[in-house]
Amino acid sequence: MSSLFDRVRFPLVQAPMAGAQGSALAVAVCRAGGIGSLPGAMLTPDALAKELATIRESLPDDALFNVNFFCHQSPAADEAVDRAWFTKLAPAYGEFGIDPASIAAGPGRLPFSEAAAEAIAPFAPPVVSFHFGLPSEALVARCRAWGAQIWSSATTVAEARWLAERGVDAIIAQGLEAGGHRGHFLSDDLSMQLPMLPLTQQISRAVATPVIAAGGIVDSQSASAAMSAGAAAVQVGTAFLRTPESTISKLYRNALASKAATHTALTNLFTGRPARGIVNRFMREYGPLNADAPAFPLATRQSAPLRAAAEAAGSADFTPLWAGQNAPLCEALPAEEIVKRIGEAALAARR
Amino acid sequence: MSSLFDRVRFPLVQAPMAGAQGSALAVAVCRAGGIGSLPGAMLTPDALAKELATIRESLPDDALFNVNFFCHQSPAADEAVDRAWFTKLAPAYGEFGIDPASIAAGPGRLPFSEAAAEAIAPFAPPVVSFHFGLPSEALVARCRAWGAQIWSSATTVAEARWLAERGVDAIIAQGLEAGGHRGHFLSDDLSMQLPMLPLTQQISRAVATPVIAAGGIVDSQSASAAMSAGAAAVQVGTAFLRTPESTISKLYRNALASKAATHTALTNLFTGRPARGIVNRFMREYGPLNADAPAFPLATRQSAPLRAAAEAAGSADFTPLWAGQNAPLCEALPAEEIVKRIGEAALAARR
Repeated sequence: MSSLFDRVRFPLVQAPMAGAQGSALAVAVCRAGGIGSLPGAMLTPDALAKELATIRESLPDDALFNVNFFCHQSPAADEAVDRAWFTKLAPAYGEFGIDPASIAAGPGRLPFSEAAAEAIAPFAPPVVSFHFGLPSEALVARCRAWGAQIWSSATTVAEARWLAERGVDAIIAQGLEAGGHRGHFLSDDLSMQLPMLPLTQQISRAVATPVIAAGGIVDSQSASAAMSAGAAAVQVGTAFLRTPESTISKLYRNALASKAATHTALTNLFTGRPARGIVNRFMREYGPLNADAPAFPLATRQSAPLRAAAEAAGSADFTPLWAGQNAPLCEALPAEEIVKRIGEAALAARR
Repeated sequence: MSSLFDRVRFPLVQAPMAGAQGSALAVAVCRAGGIGSLPGAMLTPDALAKELATIRESLPDDALFNVNFFCHQSPAADEAVDRAWFTKLAPAYGEFGIDPASIAAGPGRLPFSEAAAEAIAPFAPPVVSFHFGLPSEALVARCRAWGAQIWSSATTVAEARWLAERGVDAIIAQGLEAGGHRGHFLSDDLSMQLPMLPLTQQISRAVATPVIAAGGIVDSQSASAAMSAGAAAVQVGTAFLRTPESTISKLYRNALASKAATHTALTNLFTGRPARGIVNRFMREYGPLNADAPAFPLATRQSAPLRAAAEAAGSADFTPLWAGQNAPLCEALPAEEIVKRIGEAALAARR
């Protein structure tokens, strides 16, 4: 299976970052010699097909790229929880003149589905990766039918063992440093989760499946540490946020370039599930973790209008500023340059 | 200053572990080519002098060793907090037939003091290291008067800068993986603290002071990662707990060798200050973090009798089982063997 990483110039995977990038970043990473990723969590089947068409048109037929999906169970909304959370956030709504009664329920993020599989099948993505475990066996089989490799994230050794038993082709060891949503699915006890280095060491000793190390990998030092710890490849997310190929706002870009990026925390305020982002006013005032927030992804209903209103006023106070703990070491560079710098180090440290 | 680490065979410091080791481990580490440490936090001036006499008698005059102290402010006991905490723990006291009224107040752990300085001065330890910042300028000057180097721990880049401004000779970058008490002193917001690899990278870029990386360093992989990230030396704690030279109980040793060691957490239940240990019944039932616990080190008053009673009954349910997140990778080996294995890798990766 490490044969897959032998088929690209660098053992480097660009982390899928829903809401922060589309096909442009994935294509740039593939062209530079890494494995680019398209995040599917916030795309409709039509949008997925459009993005994949762009990727297929832009790259040679044998290019390796990844499409990523969340695979949570969609919970039913709980009226009482919703009402209590609206009440708690009332001061913030008041500040922006938002009437909570006007806020419609929305899906937030969609899990992988038959419709999504249908939309991507014609493009036969070589890798389909999942966050929060795995979808149904039928959906996994559907992807395997066109020859796709299946990857998923583990935040603990127990999760890695669970995935290995189910035959995934690679396990993304998501260290605690990583930006964005935590991928845990066996326990929501965050204290069980390990930073990148011990997680990579422990998972690569526990399972035979190739390990893709993630979390805080932003430069040659961190990449070579990950590879030396037993990884078959590195996954890099935050380092790509400040590229011209990412689609993040000026506000988000500014936050990443500022001193604020030195303090990230896990917060469930934006979506209902812990995710790492730069600490901002919303997190300071209501969290960063708050047991009253609705379940993932329902809390998006309450946070999205605040984000929109604050951003319209030029502020990132209510924006999810997903970033990993090594964000302060990241520079604004083209994706190609990042792939080469980190990829060379990963390649040199490959054993 | 990295000249200090050039004066020993290996750039390896044995982490001081109060309650888990004395002069025997420090001597064994020094003899094997590392820098041994004597933890002073739980020793009276007389005991300190006795241990230092043993170290001096056992080693050549130019041997490098370290004496470590906590330097917290001793808080006054708060009657109301004490009473509320006794009440909360009543079920546990009841189970062991302990009468809370019979539990006397105790110092828990003593901060570095004039008396401690007086006791150690005749032995002129070459390094005096501190946890929780630095003691008064007068006490630091007292140690410098006999030629001692001064080291202290940082859990954030801000703390490293603070220490560098005060002229410490080395900064221990205490990654979140590390076992035992967190060394923070500028903020008690645990979300600000970084794992070993990003912390070492960020501190070594922010200050010119040599950095000693700590947290999860238990083998050649982790040691070489730390050195490649910019460390001048590595500090190793948990890996020495299962040596014949450590003084921990059979119960503690068994816990380290068991599956329980795969889950550690930060807990303030034992002393009032967050420290990383193997999750046990006390932590599961009352924590692991509990805002009602008295301030450090006063909570020791409430936890110590439970620990004693449970241990007498053959259980580690109420024992502080300090350990880092890479404990599962640690084997039972002589200290000399550990120094060599980890030290060789650290030396090879030194830049």
